[in-house]
Amino acid sequence: MQLQLQTWQEVEAYLQTSRGIILPIGSTEQHGPNGLIGTDAICAEVIARGVGEAAAALVAPTITVGMAQHHLGFAGSMTLRPSTLIAVLKDMVESLVRHGFERFYFLNGHGGNIATLTAAFSEIYATRSLGAASNLPSIKCRLKNWWQNQEVHDLAKGLYGNAEGSHATPSEVSVTQFAYPEAIKSALLEPPVAPWGDFADAADYRRKFPDGRIGSNPGLATPEAGRRLYDAAVAAITKDYRSWVHA
Amino acid sequence: MQLQLQTWQEVEAYLQTSRGIILPIGSTEQHGPNGLIGTDAICAEVIARGVGEAAAALVAPTITVGMAQHHLGFAGSMTLRPSTLIAVLKDMVESLVRHGFERFYFLNGHGGNIATLTAAFSEIYATRSLGAASNLPSIKCRLKNWWQNQEVHDLAKGLYGNAEGSHATPSEVSVTQFAYPEAIKSALLEPPVAPWGDFADAADYRRKFPDGRIGSNPGLATPEAGRRLYDAAVAAITKDYRSWVHA
Amino acid sequence: MQLQLQTWQEVEAYLQTSRGIILPIGSTEQHGPNGLIGTDAICAEVIARGVGEAAAALVAPTITVGMAQHHLGFAGSMTLRPSTLIAVLKDMVESLVRHGFERFYFLNGHGGNIATLTAAFSEIYATRSLGAASNLPSIKCRLKNWWQNQEVHDLAKGLYGNAEGSHATPSEVSVTQFAYPEAIKSALLEPPVAPWGDFADAADYRRKFPDGRIGSNPGLATPEAGRRLYDAAVAAITKDYRSWVHA
Amino acid sequence: MQLQLQTWQEVEAYLQTSRGIILPIGSTEQHGPNGLIGTDAICAEVIARGVGEAAAALVAPTITVGMAQHHLGFAGSMTLRPSTLIAVLKDMVESLVRHGFERFYFLNGHGGNIATLTAAFSEIYATRSLGAASNLPSIKCRLKNWWQNQEVHDLAKGLYGNAEGSHATPSEVSVTQFAYPEAIKSALLEPPVAPWGDFADAADYRRKFPDGRIGSNPGLATPEAGRRLYDAAVAAITKDYRSWVHA
Amino acid sequence: MQLQLQTWQEVEAYLQTSRGIILPIGSTEQHGPNGLIGTDAICAEVIARGVGEAAAALVAPTITVGMAQHHLGFAGSMTLRPSTLIAVLKDMVESLVRHGFERFYFLNGHGGNIATLTAAFSEIYATRSLGAASNLPSIKCRLKNWWQNQEVHDLAKGLYGNAEGSHATPSEVSVTQFAYPEAIKSALLEPPVAPWGDFADAADYRRKFPDGRIGSNPGLATPEAGRRLYDAAVAAITKDYRSWVHA
Amino acid sequence: MQLQLQTWQEVEAYLQTSRGIILPIGSTEQHGPNGLIGTDAICAEVIARGVGEAAAALVAPTITVGMAQHHLGFAGSMTLRPSTLIAVLKDMVESLVRHGFERFYFLNGHGGNIATLTAAFSEIYATRSLGAASNLPSIKCRLKNWWQNQEVHDLAKGLYGNAEGSHATPSEVSVTQFAYPEAIKSALLEPPVAPWGDFADAADYRRKFPDGRIGSNPGLATPEAGRRLYDAAVAAITKDYRSWVHA
Repeated sequence: MQLQLQTWQEVEAYLQTSRGIILPIGSTEQHGPNGLIGTDAICAEVIARGVGEAAAALVAPTITVGMAQHHLGFAGSMTLRPSTLIAVLKDMVESLVRHGFERFYFLNGHGGNIATLTAAFSEIYATRSLGAASNLPSIKCRLKNWWQNQEVHDLAKGLYGNAEGSHATPSEVSVTQFAYPEAIKSALLEPPVAPWGDFADAADYRRKFPDGRIGSNPGLATPEAGRRLYDAAVAAITKDYRSWVHA
Repeated sequence: MQLQLQTWQEVEAYLQTSRGIILPIGSTEQHGPNGLIGTDAICAEVIARGVGEAAAALVAPTITVGMAQHHLGFAGSMTLRPSTLIAVLKDMVESLVRHGFERFYFLNGHGGNIATLTAAFSEIYATRSLGAASNLPSIKCRLKNWWQNQEVHDLAKGLYGNAEGSHATPSEVSVTQFAYPEAIKSALLEPPVAPWGDFADAADYRRKFPDGRIGSNPGLATPEAGRRLYDAAVAAITKDYRSWVHA
Repeated sequence: MQLQLQTWQEVEAYLQTSRGIILPIGSTEQHGPNGLIGTDAICAEVIARGVGEAAAALVAPTITVGMAQHHLGFAGSMTLRPSTLIAVLKDMVESLVRHGFERFYFLNGHGGNIATLTAAFSEIYATRSLGAASNLPSIKCRLKNWWQNQEVHDLAKGLYGNAEGSHATPSEVSVTQFAYPEAIKSALLEPPVAPWGDFADAADYRRKFPDGRIGSNPGLATPEAGRRLYDAAVAAITKDYRSWVHA
Repeated sequence: MQLQLQTWQEVEAYLQTSRGIILPIGSTEQHGPNGLIGTDAICAEVIARGVGEAAAALVAPTITVGMAQHHLGFAGSMTLRPSTLIAVLKDMVESLVRHGFERFYFLNGHGGNIATLTAAFSEIYATRSLGAASNLPSIKCRLKNWWQNQEVHDLAKGLYGNAEGSHATPSEVSVTQFAYPEAIKSALLEPPVAPWGDFADAADYRRKFPDGRIGSNPGLATPEAGRRLYDAAVAAITKDYRSWVHA
Repeated sequence: MQLQLQTWQEVEAYLQTSRGIILPIGSTEQHGPNGLIGTDAICAEVIARGVGEAAAALVAPTITVGMAQHHLGFAGSMTLRPSTLIAVLKDMVESLVRHGFERFYFLNGHGGNIATLTAAFSEIYATRSLGAASNLPSIKCRLKNWWQNQEVHDLAKGLYGNAEGSHATPSEVSVTQFAYPEAIKSALLEPPVAPWGDFADAADYRRKFPDGRIGSNPGLATPEAGRRLYDAAVAAITKDYRSWVHA
Repeated sequence: MQLQLQTWQEVEAYLQTSRGIILPIGSTEQHGPNGLIGTDAICAEVIARGVGEAAAALVAPTITVGMAQHHLGFAGSMTLRPSTLIAVLKDMVESLVRHGFERFYFLNGHGGNIATLTAAFSEIYATRSLGAASNLPSIKCRLKNWWQNQEVHDLAKGLYGNAEGSHATPSEVSVTQFAYPEAIKSALLEPPVAPWGDFADAADYRRKFPDGRIGSNPGLATPEAGRRLYDAAVAAITKDYRSWVHA
């Protein structure tokens, strides 16, 4: 149930049955030589839509540009500054609060969004917390990374072991290959498994990870694995959403 | 050529041939009883992708939430404050400037975005204009509404005459029916042609336009008309983009 | 009735009869070799005062510095960033709302202000639209360019035809010559009618319009024409203000 | 030499001889039963223009709305938040720096502006101070209250003694009567000399100073005194400006 | 080596030997019936100073008010909004960059700061990442929670097991008892071990955790345990700082 | 009574007896060759604590980094931009208002903070002043420099006469020597009494005051004088606080 494909009366009817909404958030950033720039947004979007179907939950339009300053050394990457992304999230949540939504489930596809998303939740809550006599409705936000559940974790480990890495992983590339089989890319990956390390700004990142990958071998990605990961993620997250939204 | 479906090396190669990029921007807001909440984003997105194919131009991910404060009286509508949207546009353009992009063609699906987009361009330019000795590259932004060309204008007039109206128009609803035939809605429209008028905030808007439409009869929309409007828009805008990006 | 020349008790009495106020807004920017830097502010101010007299309406102090980043390549031009101007307009309107004003009629002298002014209105409305249970009073803002009415349009066309142009026009220079006859300047204009075109930042503007004018021949300006344009503008705008403020 | 009455070429020529500019700043706020709402802006403006003539210095357009939150309990008063006014001053100074101005002499008519103006100077300087390798030109801002010089102080004391007070003073009302004799107001002032005290927000101010005055008897104001005060201020400030701008 | 107790020449000399600095950051918030409001700031400060001595590293003044919106239901708690804290951290780091510092080690005492601190690092890096031709020096920020190392973890587990909890823990209360033995409080804790759970805004937090603790029994705290935890933390963090600052 | 050393229940009890709180604010900036970088924060903190004891008043944690952009030419100095410091002060006050505090007594140790603090008060008040129907509680902020009272003034004059100067004064250095005798520094001061002058940004400051001092000879500082100054300040300010908080 994509919000974008509803009429306002349909949303009004939905609000009679639920106060929850799923908001996919990804990123627009390099994912190595064979990963798509939209990888994180695609993963978040397709899994969110799967969960939306399974849980009869509304799914907001995907936030496609996230916090990715460290990837700006690679062409095509885009970022919002953390302060900008906080303002965006605040406006989006406040818009939906206006209609009666009270549970905001952010389905995230990008590790680099985690801190800013969490800070944004506090920025939103702070408006309520700083006003003692406030009569604003009580709301809750939840951040859920699509890969953070036992099912996906076990599956990825079984499929790729240490070659999973932490950026441009074979798991996320697989999910995009499942979602967009027409956009599967092949590229020489040298070395097959990329180096590990930490990073600061974009120049530092590029210096340490010359082709953009961290610790991963996305050459192992397949659309079949993508389908399995997608199924596992949808099942696990549907369960999590259902128990949370009704709590 | 969706940016999201490229690798960073492909973008690097693209930049050898062009410094331009198309950025679709829409809105998430009510479009009357039979119009989709995502109408403006859908129109901007599908037409932008059509132009991208025709002109071999990169298309950035769609900005789906725009400036729509006046629609917040209807469930499901979302807005960014103008100041937030300006910050978003500035970060997006500055990200792309980092890679060498210099021509930013915003393909817009929502009248309510026009002022803020135009102000954002000035905010971006002001950074350059205020710095006398700046060595920042020269850039240009262009705002193009998908319906503002002779071809689309004539076609819409021929199809709908005065029933086109200005919000939740049969033209834009047609384009979404063409793009998402599985999401065609039927609804009683009473009166068939909605009232005209101006508006201020969301309460004022809802008071004057009780079902959300302005001056339109979107009951006349058909997917066939949508296809014709799409074709006309893609042709006209491709021509405009090509002549602008090479100027 | 200039606000600046009233006492607070006089304003209190005024509010018993009207909730409207006129706010002139101009710019401080080059207007070619014989146009004054204050042209836009002067035109807005003198016409606003004329309307204020004719309509017995309060006139706020003129906002003299507007959005003029593109003129910064010429000495003496000043700009507020769009985000700054939005903040200014929000504070000004909120101050007046405190006293009971509800209708804000911005009489504008500068095309470059239009987008930012319109965005500012939405920023102001958004505070109301995002708060469902708000008990803020209902307000309305209107943007009126002094030259956008049939009377002034016809007069300017009759006087200058195609030599009117779009920046440093003989019409606006005439109005300033009528208002400040002691500051009439003469300068060689070469070519007599300036080139047309679009522009981005200040460097781009200066490159294309070396003496600052766009499409105009302000050498045709006269104080007599200024008086006629002033009279036409005051008459047309007074009518517009009266019908709007009482609607 | 009002900036608004110059052409850009005249400003360019001026910059060959001086890097200084005078920026009058006032306020739009109640000044008691017989004082004008524009008192502070009027005083700053007329004295600035006097100094501009005497010192052959450019005078920027007056900043008419200042920081006056404490006066909002009285109709017609307007304020910018300190954070907004800081942004305005930063944009104005940066605009002028672009052209080569380096000395910014703010001629102030309102005590309530002092803190924010001073903070704005630091905000402007901080951009330079935080950038070690900056090649921005060296600039200086100066804040000068028109009444803070021996000449004006002695004259006001001689004329009004303790009835001068600190808000809606007979001195400032006199200057406006000299400047706008057509707008001289008469009103019963009871008690003749208003009470003294401190204040916090607008409600607190109104509670303590029911007719808006603090410690003053502006019933003693005369246009003749205004002329003498104006002359004294122009003389003293011209001297100050000249010695500062050349230092 | 507290920065506050140095002269500027001593700092200049220090910069000849190291580019690193430790910045303790805590919070000002309730810590249950027997925990101090300053617990997080005190822990971060005393441990930072211990590390500073051991590693001959400069220690900046403690940031005592952090992000604690969720604690505002309890008297004395203070918060900065995330957006404010980001601005503070940016200004502090940029100030120190001016002098040549390049490694910023934030020693954190409050879980609620983690997201905002991490977002602030990205905000700081983004200035560099968005500017392709930038010649700003390369910098790195590190966030280190004082309790996140094997030594402290094992010690706390051995001392308190499951009664450690996650807010107002016996470990952190012990460290403050060691640091301020004169401020040891006793209070009835009922139940001895507080409930677990998640939370959103301040009202939600207070509803779920009526005396402020989460999952902990701080009645088990002792100054002796505090000394052991302090020693363990200083040893572990000194090692971490040394290896990081020289990397 | 340091807030940091209380429990939340103790603060709740305190609020039954008083609505006032003391907030020390200093700076982190060079204080010449023998003055500590923390001088201003140390003076404000120790005197605030003395007043807190004498007046049984709560003392908030010290704001250690203030507005010191002009000192950034000297290693170790840190600044918040005025706009950042205003946001910090607003959040801090609003946090405390939530609990019932209504009187905010800022005990200041740094002249450079005065303008920004005063502007911040207006920023805080403006939220109330701009909302006519507001039901926010009435609050008051007071700024008190520790040296601005007859007792300290006379004592400093008696001890140091003209060698007191205005930055890195023997008085403030004495107070820090009294507070931190282990950190007394000796340095050659040449000339013994530093030059006077005004300043703009950090480069300008350093040019004019090569060792950081203004007009002072801090070589005359002694811990004994520090104790006397401390005693005088505590006595004078306790009296001021008491009479103000109960007014």
